[in-house]
Amino acid sequence: MTEQTTHQQIAEALDKGDLLTSYRGQFAIPPKLIYLDGNSLGPLQPAVGKKVAETLVVEWGTDLIKSWNKAGWIDLPETVGEQIAPIIGAKSGTVIATDSTSVNVFKTLAAALLMRSDRRKIVSENGNFPTDLYMTQATTAFLGTGHELVTVKDDDALMKAIDEETAVVLLTQVDYKTGRMLDMAKITAHAHEKGALIIWDLCHSAGAFPVALDACNVDFAIGCGYKYLNGGPGAPAFIYVKKELQNQAIQPLSGWFAHEAPFEFDPEFKPAMSIKRYLTGTPPVLSLMALHEALKIWKDVDMRLIRQKSVGLSQLFIQAVEETCEGLTLASLRDPQLRGSQVSFTFDGDGYALMQALIAEGVIGDFRQPNILRFGFAPLYVRYKDVVRAAEILADILKTERWKDEKFNVRSEVT
Amino acid sequence: MTEQTTHQQIAEALDKGDLLTSYRGQFAIPPKLIYLDGNSLGPLQPAVGKKVAETLVVEWGTDLIKSWNKAGWIDLPETVGEQIAPIIGAKSGTVIATDSTSVNVFKTLAAALLMRSDRRKIVSENGNFPTDLYMTQATTAFLGTGHELVTVKDDDALMKAIDEETAVVLLTQVDYKTGRMLDMAKITAHAHEKGALIIWDLCHSAGAFPVALDACNVDFAIGCGYKYLNGGPGAPAFIYVKKELQNQAIQPLSGWFAHEAPFEFDPEFKPAMSIKRYLTGTPPVLSLMALHEALKIWKDVDMRLIRQKSVGLSQLFIQAVEETCEGLTLASLRDPQLRGSQVSFTFDGDGYALMQALIAEGVIGDFRQPNILRFGFAPLYVRYKDVVRAAEILADILKTERWKDEKFNVRSEVT
Repeated sequence: MTEQTTHQQIAEALDKGDLLTSYRGQFAIPPKLIYLDGNSLGPLQPAVGKKVAETLVVEWGTDLIKSWNKAGWIDLPETVGEQIAPIIGAKSGTVIATDSTSVNVFKTLAAALLMRSDRRKIVSENGNFPTDLYMTQATTAFLGTGHELVTVKDDDALMKAIDEETAVVLLTQVDYKTGRMLDMAKITAHAHEKGALIIWDLCHSAGAFPVALDACNVDFAIGCGYKYLNGGPGAPAFIYVKKELQNQAIQPLSGWFAHEAPFEFDPEFKPAMSIKRYLTGTPPVLSLMALHEALKIWKDVDMRLIRQKSVGLSQLFIQAVEETCEGLTLASLRDPQLRGSQVSFTFDGDGYALMQALIAEGVIGDFRQPNILRFGFAPLYVRYKDVVRAAEILADILKTERWKDEKFNVRSEVT
Repeated sequence: MTEQTTHQQIAEALDKGDLLTSYRGQFAIPPKLIYLDGNSLGPLQPAVGKKVAETLVVEWGTDLIKSWNKAGWIDLPETVGEQIAPIIGAKSGTVIATDSTSVNVFKTLAAALLMRSDRRKIVSENGNFPTDLYMTQATTAFLGTGHELVTVKDDDALMKAIDEETAVVLLTQVDYKTGRMLDMAKITAHAHEKGALIIWDLCHSAGAFPVALDACNVDFAIGCGYKYLNGGPGAPAFIYVKKELQNQAIQPLSGWFAHEAPFEFDPEFKPAMSIKRYLTGTPPVLSLMALHEALKIWKDVDMRLIRQKSVGLSQLFIQAVEETCEGLTLASLRDPQLRGSQVSFTFDGDGYALMQALIAEGVIGDFRQPNILRFGFAPLYVRYKDVVRAAEILADILKTERWKDEKFNVRSEVT
């Protein structure tokens, strides 16, 4: 960049050349808001609001119980699974929408443990998203058969920890705090070489960049619907199971929706011979319908463009912040190929208060313990000019020390 | 009834004296529809549609991530639990809304097994709703520690089966096919006498009649939100855990919402010291908000009036059907005190086709294998004149044999 070229000028040029620019209009981003928190909760598409209203008033209100057939409610878990599959590099019949990510950690972990019943070791990272670790701790405690959860700190330790005693490796592809991305192909191959099964948590991956589950020969994957997939608050999660593994175990949450014929009301459980055996009970239709409608936008999206723009947005943001913001240190890896679609900074003051000040001025990111400011870049609706403006506002807050105002130090439960 | 008094006249008089009559106006029952399927999916209240639209457009669309605090999303599982508690005779702090009934069977069953780890027997009924049995089968198979599910056929066998080796008794209070109601107080006391814990499935009880969980000293209960509670298709389910038992075990689906401080992102699980430890992952907010709004109608409802009207509706329906409909035999117990809020008949022809013919003429009930016609009576919106009119239409279809039309023999997946 020459002295004459400002960040704003770069942003303008990049926005002009953005091949994804038409998608932003399909989202209801409040005017003047710069939303860099789509990695926590993706925004509403007005089409989703319209569809859910129809589900409420027509499907539920007028057609009532008939809508299980007429409006396709009964098939929604599969329908939504098929919509998610291409986004994560999965073939038809391998993905289903169901329950929450936490519940799905249990289902896949339990199924994997049943398939490797001669082994007792589960490997994960200690920086993994807490719910993955909690579910694993609770599962092993429940089983009471001497399973051991080994959590490691870095990539080297991870590769070493995966050995011939390892039953299952459970990893989140993108670290929720720093955005660091693990090498799915390499780690999966290593796990298989040692005879272990692997589960990838895609919460910060699905919709953020191309994921290649089939190509990496992944065994299981799980992820949520409310971040980059924009399915709405607490949208149902999903499960991917490699075709060859699907019928090897009956997972322990086999409720009536996992039966080969739920409406036969058979007292004996006969598992569906498909990904449907990873279902459990009746799905929350309103939330699942919102996710279904939200996913329609992905139909024609080229995931390579998503990745290209994601890298462009994050690099421009890092550049602008580092050149203009005092006291912030990049907490993410500098190489964009080693990151997901988010960037984090640590702050040498009160990071919580700084994020509150930023939010008060219309830039939404989030704060994570102990002192991390996290910014997510969702290429479907974030513009280059947004990230430059966000950095400008951040710089100005730091310069004037507006974050020191005591009103920004009021802690709330969720940030 | 004298020769001069018709069923319609009786209905008219009863409707006039109905103290619950004002509630019907709060539901969007399609004109001319007689809805006797609220035990499968309760109808929409327009206020619910309005609230969910607000959640979509304002809470999600405009306030985005801030709504976890601002709109109370984070507290919804507890808020909704507190709304359900008085309906099922439970004190504050004992009920929480979460997941599906099937998932909640697992959570409570697993917690109970952990509390009775020296015992191996689980007692249920073979007529129990299939998902309860499937979840139990899958759980014991997963544990692989020799647990045995014993299912019995009748009340006598049930009492005998509950013995000193029994860890857990899992029963649905109201049989989903026949409406038979079990004696909660007696069976619970018997289970406790033998040292067993008990789980009651309230899917066909909650909102159908007064339930007295605390008074019966029940250990655990579960139930769904989409039948008599009218929470919408696949509405989240609930869990009740007796106060004294809540902190005795960590249930195996302990995700981050079960942590005492989820947003501390602590890598070590510290269970909430409350009913919140029965939560798992992020709840589906749209569906949970619909349930929250739907439950507001119950605030001032006298459950004794619900029961009184439920009995009145079902007795009048049985009377009208038996006096006018050829070929139908009551499959429910005749004594209303031994039934929930539904009535079933078997048919000496094709019951499936008969129900389809009835539905085509605007009376919605449902069909259950092998040959059961099931009718549910939700006192908040069903009128006496509805049940009399339903019997008239049924009688006419039988008389003219309209159910034999081949169009009524087309099977669909859900009925």
